[in-house]
Amino acid sequence: MLKLGIIGTNWITQQFVEAAAETKRYELVSVYSRTLAKAKDFGKKNGATKFFDDLTEFFKSDTFDTVYIASPNSLHFAQAKLAIDHGKNIIVEKPAFTNQKQMQKIQELLTKNPSVHLLEAARNVHTKNFSAIKKQVVAMDRIQGASFTYMKYSSRYDQVLAGETPNIFTLKFAGGALQDLGVYTAYDAIALFGMPDDVAYYPQFISTQVDGKGTAILRYPEFDVTLNFGKITNSFASSEIYGMKDTIVIDDAGELTDVQYHDEDGKVTQIGDTPEGNPMVDEANDFAEILEAPEAPKNRENYEKWLSLSINVNKVLFNLRQSGKLEFPDD
Amino acid sequence: MLKLGIIGTNWITQQFVEAAAETKRYELVSVYSRTLAKAKDFGKKNGATKFFDDLTEFFKSDTFDTVYIASPNSLHFAQAKLAIDHGKNIIVEKPAFTNQKQMQKIQELLTKNPSVHLLEAARNVHTKNFSAIKKQVVAMDRIQGASFTYMKYSSRYDQVLAGETPNIFTLKFAGGALQDLGVYTAYDAIALFGMPDDVAYYPQFISTQVDGKGTAILRYPEFDVTLNFGKITNSFASSEIYGMKDTIVIDDAGELTDVQYHDEDGKVTQIGDTPEGNPMVDEANDFAEILEAPEAPKNRENYEKWLSLSINVNKVLFNLRQSGKLEFPDD
Repeated sequence: MLKLGIIGTNWITQQFVEAAAETKRYELVSVYSRTLAKAKDFGKKNGATKFFDDLTEFFKSDTFDTVYIASPNSLHFAQAKLAIDHGKNIIVEKPAFTNQKQMQKIQELLTKNPSVHLLEAARNVHTKNFSAIKKQVVAMDRIQGASFTYMKYSSRYDQVLAGETPNIFTLKFAGGALQDLGVYTAYDAIALFGMPDDVAYYPQFISTQVDGKGTAILRYPEFDVTLNFGKITNSFASSEIYGMKDTIVIDDAGELTDVQYHDEDGKVTQIGDTPEGNPMVDEANDFAEILEAPEAPKNRENYEKWLSLSINVNKVLFNLRQSGKLEFPDD
Repeated sequence: MLKLGIIGTNWITQQFVEAAAETKRYELVSVYSRTLAKAKDFGKKNGATKFFDDLTEFFKSDTFDTVYIASPNSLHFAQAKLAIDHGKNIIVEKPAFTNQKQMQKIQELLTKNPSVHLLEAARNVHTKNFSAIKKQVVAMDRIQGASFTYMKYSSRYDQVLAGETPNIFTLKFAGGALQDLGVYTAYDAIALFGMPDDVAYYPQFISTQVDGKGTAILRYPEFDVTLNFGKITNSFASSEIYGMKDTIVIDDAGELTDVQYHDEDGKVTQIGDTPEGNPMVDEANDFAEILEAPEAPKNRENYEKWLSLSINVNKVLFNLRQSGKLEFPDD
């Protein structure tokens, strides 16, 4: 049983804690929040027994072996460093880190602490439907590009319009559309097609200086991939992977709940399942598999694959920000 | 009754001739083809009485007052010049001309020959559904961008793959995806939102050196519009115009056969009709209206509007080609 400590008490933490419980491979022990009452409230409801409002005490407590980090993006780096210092495995919400400098530092620390593992919670690429998409891509004669769209109006944008500055829409906390939803589409593209040769980003800035919406182009030797994402409006457009006369059609690039293959004769086949229940269970299982037996060759191979994917996504997001002139204070 | 001469005997000419007949405002009289037999074949089938294989004789014949030009794109310019010289009104398939130099020359000639009118057959912006979209856009509180997609595998691409060079896929005839299908999406954007401040084009080149597929970004002061188009693969993704929490969803940017408005409460309303029959009838009527009484104030106003739209689309397509390093021999 993996002993779990968590940082954050918001809805995504709740969802992960429930997913972890569902796998029966994690036991939630410790909860950190800046407010002890919040840690207790959230923790007791979910079966935790230790509560902290001091981050160093939390990591020193030796009550857990794996930390799940779902704090605002810009805090991940310092928290992950502390975790590595204290020998804790890390599951960190995407985007793991906000720039390449941070990612490189973490890589150095991981190399020095080989018993510690870092896993980025990019739930979409851990789903069965993503595997089905990948299998279909491999089976297709030729790929001629893709378009991934994930655009949902965030209720927090109501707050922005009312003059407030919710974390997710601030530069200080490394928020904005690319970081929050674009990261799903970047994961889709890079997990399927690897690193692009070149990238371009066209952000639409909002009053808080972050990107509320944007279009990114990833240029591969043989084709381009377009990423569309946003938090200030709603898209109903499908995501697509283009073959010759055949196309994979996906309801949306974040949820991947409906995946169809249109073959060259126009015949439509459902590929993958209609997922039910908690969308974080697949990643929770994938991560448990690795953390339970990190030395098993298959697990080691998967870990290297996920870590290298994290590094690549971090690099692409950073390059997209450079292209779009979107700077964070930590840069 | 407008007396019609036509250049071209292909499927789109057939469609226009049928649309013109359906309006009961045009009488097809003369047909030009490089091959007299083709002109006769096509013409007799459609009720024409004069047939030509010499373009100057065709224009000198004085058998018609309006010419419909549906030749390969790069031939439009010389043919339109001849038409103006001979005092014929012009309906020219989109894209009317392949660069700004040509368009400027035509504008000069039109100014010198005020009795001649030039109308670009961008059928999508003449449909009732386009008017419904425009009305909805005006009614929406705020527009935050759009994405227009028109991507259909062309059977001519089979020929390219077999080593042939069909006109529509050659630089010589100013072919490729931007010219052939991208022009519909550019018309949608510019007719709705006017001229962008800046543009960028990411073409995917094919063996014949033209763009088989591409993504264009039109940057407006308040938002961006993304255009996706291609002739080497199939897209099923809807086109969209983004409000705040509301979105207009269009089946595709070329046909506009299904247009829905998703309001901020998620309620979906069909706007516009399901069009039936020949998709060129609306433009044929709009053009007849102008050509029948060009001096009527309303017609003069519409003509200026359509001509200015043609000039703007020509400029944007040219700027997109510059951005994408896509040069035609005529440049």
